[in-house]
Amino acid sequence: MTIRTVVWGENVHEQIHPAVRALYPQGMHTCIAEALNTAPDISASTATLQEPEHGLTEPRLRDTDVLLWWGHLAHDDVTDEVVERIAQRVWQGMGLIVLHSGHYAKIFKRLMGTSCSLLYREDGRQERVWVTNPSHPIAQGIGRFIEVPESEMYGEPFAIPNPDETVFISHFAGGEVFRSGVTFQRGGGRIFYFSPGHETFPIYHQADIQRVLVNAVRWASPKSEPWVDQCIELPSLD
Amino acid sequence: MTIRTVVWGENVHEQIHPAVRALYPQGMHTCIAEALNTAPDISASTATLQEPEHGLTEPRLRDTDVLLWWGHLAHDDVTDEVVERIAQRVWQGMGLIVLHSGHYAKIFKRLMGTSCSLLYREDGRQERVWVTNPSHPIAQGIGRFIEVPESEMYGEPFAIPNPDETVFISHFAGGEVFRSGVTFQRGGGRIFYFSPGHETFPIYHQADIQRVLVNAVRWASPKSEPWVDQCIELPSLD
Amino acid sequence: MTIRTVVWGENVHEQIHPAVRALYPQGMHTCIAEALNTAPDISASTATLQEPEHGLTEPRLRDTDVLLWWGHLAHDDVTDEVVERIAQRVWQGMGLIVLHSGHYAKIFKRLMGTSCSLLYREDGRQERVWVTNPSHPIAQGIGRFIEVPESEMYGEPFAIPNPDETVFISHFAGGEVFRSGVTFQRGGGRIFYFSPGHETFPIYHQADIQRVLVNAVRWASPKSEPWVDQCIELPSLD
Amino acid sequence: MTIRTVVWGENVHEQIHPAVRALYPQGMHTCIAEALNTAPDISASTATLQEPEHGLTEPRLRDTDVLLWWGHLAHDDVTDEVVERIAQRVWQGMGLIVLHSGHYAKIFKRLMGTSCSLLYREDGRQERVWVTNPSHPIAQGIGRFIEVPESEMYGEPFAIPNPDETVFISHFAGGEVFRSGVTFQRGGGRIFYFSPGHETFPIYHQADIQRVLVNAVRWASPKSEPWVDQCIELPSLD
Repeated sequence: MTIRTVVWGENVHEQIHPAVRALYPQGMHTCIAEALNTAPDISASTATLQEPEHGLTEPRLRDTDVLLWWGHLAHDDVTDEVVERIAQRVWQGMGLIVLHSGHYAKIFKRLMGTSCSLLYREDGRQERVWVTNPSHPIAQGIGRFIEVPESEMYGEPFAIPNPDETVFISHFAGGEVFRSGVTFQRGGGRIFYFSPGHETFPIYHQADIQRVLVNAVRWASPKSEPWVDQCIELPSLD
Repeated sequence: MTIRTVVWGENVHEQIHPAVRALYPQGMHTCIAEALNTAPDISASTATLQEPEHGLTEPRLRDTDVLLWWGHLAHDDVTDEVVERIAQRVWQGMGLIVLHSGHYAKIFKRLMGTSCSLLYREDGRQERVWVTNPSHPIAQGIGRFIEVPESEMYGEPFAIPNPDETVFISHFAGGEVFRSGVTFQRGGGRIFYFSPGHETFPIYHQADIQRVLVNAVRWASPKSEPWVDQCIELPSLD
Repeated sequence: MTIRTVVWGENVHEQIHPAVRALYPQGMHTCIAEALNTAPDISASTATLQEPEHGLTEPRLRDTDVLLWWGHLAHDDVTDEVVERIAQRVWQGMGLIVLHSGHYAKIFKRLMGTSCSLLYREDGRQERVWVTNPSHPIAQGIGRFIEVPESEMYGEPFAIPNPDETVFISHFAGGEVFRSGVTFQRGGGRIFYFSPGHETFPIYHQADIQRVLVNAVRWASPKSEPWVDQCIELPSLD
Repeated sequence: MTIRTVVWGENVHEQIHPAVRALYPQGMHTCIAEALNTAPDISASTATLQEPEHGLTEPRLRDTDVLLWWGHLAHDDVTDEVVERIAQRVWQGMGLIVLHSGHYAKIFKRLMGTSCSLLYREDGRQERVWVTNPSHPIAQGIGRFIEVPESEMYGEPFAIPNPDETVFISHFAGGEVFRSGVTFQRGGGRIFYFSPGHETFPIYHQADIQRVLVNAVRWASPKSEPWVDQCIELPSLD
């Protein structure tokens, strides 16, 4: 069965930052969606901040199995109503993949219940993304590590709840470490946070990064009927 | 060192429901605070919904080590501003103990990132609260289980994230089970949810229930300096 | 792809206990294997204690994706060599499903690192196996709970490590609770412990119990290449 | 109350390796015990491989609250009987702190149920031990990280079960990462693994490393009565 996937892009840097536009002429979201669409079992489309309801209407979300999220400059411009709508769908079982600076997106903070803060430094040095759990579905087809030649440093402490699984930990040439690939379950939905993806470097053009995203979409796709999540008065069983 | 503790009570049933007032003439919050104050290392005061800022001003929260929370009818009357203030203090390290129908309080749902829904039935039958982790600090001084002669049934599935620890699981005479004592960490703060405590039964008068609350306050009290939780640009270490 | 599955049975009660033989003329292991073989993607065979190397030779284990284990009276008769062989295969990625009194099997204690003790009472009263995680693959096709009309009571505290996931918690008519369906990962292997299955009751003839076992085999089947698990001296990356 | 602590040293390198003897004339175990004894609430003694029963007789273990373990060359010389005795005491509630190459000690592998393998390279380059959980009791008094000027590299994947908590993650100048401080609970006992401590470098002379060990002893000390861990037939509660 096809995994109906939506790649959401904030789509701001691409409009105002020539270097980003040069790397991603149609936007990072389009680059990612095209990579996902090379997988025969994934059907990926895009949505952006600028569309009505940010492209995430009630009917569209209902027909979405996995949502990917990239945002940075304009987290506050995402309406609370859409954030709540996404949270509800995650609880029902929709998968959510949060990318890079999406650690500070409303929807990620909403689902984590923590500040999701971290250390950072935009110095364009090397990042090595080490596989800590070689048997995890998301790490298949990757060697010992992924090398990102130029990256933004994200450092610990990363203020997230104790993750269900730690799939990747990154090493930065400048001297820091970061849990760069972690999983969570919230209600019926599987969540994967994956940190590599700074907009001024061609990270989403890397084949191994694309492989991780394909794996993650498959991993995060719903494994059950939607969980209708509400308090229910249960009649006596006697 | 004294653990500065605040017991927050919604204080609505006690005003409108004669049976509840008969059990708790000064309110459940006062009953709980008095029980905590029998411990030499705990100094407990109370706060209620009806006070300005619900009794939880910025300075008061800054001087609070552990906050207990009981609410039911009026979750929506708690202002978002106060909820956010509490969340920030939990991330810094304040302990939080959420009681009974507080599973649906704004602050608990805020910190869990899930719906926190469950099954329920108010039938006043027996609940047995089994200790699943006899070495946990919160279970000390309790035998195999606590017997609550009359209780409201809370049943699984309980839509919370995978807990860090499961200390108690309850058995209900009507045929259900519930993870009735679970722990979480969010930022620097320790959180304990404890479900027994329906307002129409004298549950907070039970010595073993009080013992759990004293243990929980000690467990949840901060073990470190406040964690100033924010994104920080780290200068190069080279 | 077919999931190559082996159901291991101790096969002692069936030889010496007429009531067990009446329920399971070919042994519990055969009953379970037949149930699994109704699934088109599972190919299940059996092995027993009495065979050479307990039916679990090196080549056979190498060709096994998922192993199910039922033992009770003769845990000590399983050789340490075979136990170690199984552990190695689990670390490489073979799934392991441990049933009922297998909580005290050498292989389960070996992989848990705890005593795996529990409370018990063979009283033949009702057990209700509640689903605590309705979106988990192992719980698909089950309603709120499975009813086992006559069961042996297994009670908390269950001395296992904190499970990765809690899928089922059981309610016993006699007044106890038990985490009856829990998952663990050890190396590359997925482990599921499922407690219902006392030999003197027709539990493995129940359709919903069989459904759980089919789900569990699928969930536990390897999701990656075998993990060759050893300390390796890594040459310098510079 | 004084925390009765035993530092166990394999004590082989110190006898055969002049550089190690120069750094630790009385052995690493003595250096560590002296550091612990500067804490007023800790009373630390030592035990070594060469003593009868490796210095860990039944009565001595019964009177031990926390055991630290350093071993490397002679893991196989530790008798299985003593290993089992330690495991039993951990389940009852004794704390266990496993150091450096102790990841491959029989007792650690026994309690983890995994191979505990990792990557390594003895190149004497810099290690930075980052605090990932600043509010954890074991990280108190440490800044953002501990710098170890010369260290042996230990790298991921580290074949341990999903830890209960990740307190430290290390960065190696050569390009690797490692979960260098992780906690587990097994039965009633708290376990902390801490990787820095290669014998040819003066790591246990560092004040911040000593601070971690003092913190860890306090954290791991028993918080409850011994848990008598066995299967028990529970009489009917009716």
